[in-house]
Amino acid sequence: MVSVRTPSTSAWWPKSRRRIRAKAVRKGQIRCLCSERKRSRPFPRLCPTVVGYGLYFFTYSTWKGRNIYMEDLYVRPEFRGQGIGKKLMSRIAQMGVEKGCTQMKFSVLDWNRPAVDFYRSKGAVDLTAAEDWHVFRFEADALRRLALGEPGE
Amino acid sequence: MVSVRTPSTSAWWPKSRRRIRAKAVRKGQIRCLCSERKRSRPFPRLCPTVVGYGLYFFTYSTWKGRNIYMEDLYVRPEFRGQGIGKKLMSRIAQMGVEKGCTQMKFSVLDWNRPAVDFYRSKGAVDLTAAEDWHVFRFEADALRRLALGEPGE
Repeated sequence: MVSVRTPSTSAWWPKSRRRIRAKAVRKGQIRCLCSERKRSRPFPRLCPTVVGYGLYFFTYSTWKGRNIYMEDLYVRPEFRGQGIGKKLMSRIAQMGVEKGCTQMKFSVLDWNRPAVDFYRSKGAVDLTAAEDWHVFRFEADALRRLALGEPGE
Repeated sequence: MVSVRTPSTSAWWPKSRRRIRAKAVRKGQIRCLCSERKRSRPFPRLCPTVVGYGLYFFTYSTWKGRNIYMEDLYVRPEFRGQGIGKKLMSRIAQMGVEKGCTQMKFSVLDWNRPAVDFYRSKGAVDLTAAEDWHVFRFEADALRRLALGEPGE
């Protein structure tokens, strides 16, 4: 059910993030795996074929070398509970292993308990809980100030 | 004082991570900025010129598009307090801004208070504290099991 492809159209992306994702996939900044069902007739256009997708890219760890990062994993609500998310994640892991990665990282909002429980059940380790790793970010204004050598706020 | 270059030799990397880093820079998996001082005579070989470095690569956010990720920032202890880390970080931010990034991310161990305070003073936001983002990782065995479709432990 899971096929590996770069979408030829952006029609199936959630509307809010459609453009940014389609452009990034086209430019090779991210890679995409999607899970499809067969087209149903007689109204194929009204019936999206993509029921889930995973986005990933390759990163690097100074300790472990090449890593794979799972940026997004989504299954349409009405198709959940059928193992589609697991299959997509497994294929992303395969992509990483094939490229010599020894780790796959991703970020989860800790209050999203179903997601946290799902990833833990598959063997993922919560590095924030286990080792106290915190994620930091310079946002737009702070990044510009930093680039210009101006003091932070 | 900060020059932008891909090191022609790996001699200046900390010994433990020398090979993995030099290879990754050569392959273009990470990019490197380093801060150098002038060579002192008459023993230039005994006197390393690189006093600090920053490693970064480009990533992607489904919400914000292209991002820059700072993987490592290091200044030799005897050269700290001279603004070298700030200059390196500022140049990494410039690289991001030039490529259209609107965010720079990185991870910090929360118990490393001098580092946390340094980044906060420059305007960085702790996303784990502010929004409850946790970092997860599939490590070597768990990643292999996931790729093979085997159950997690």
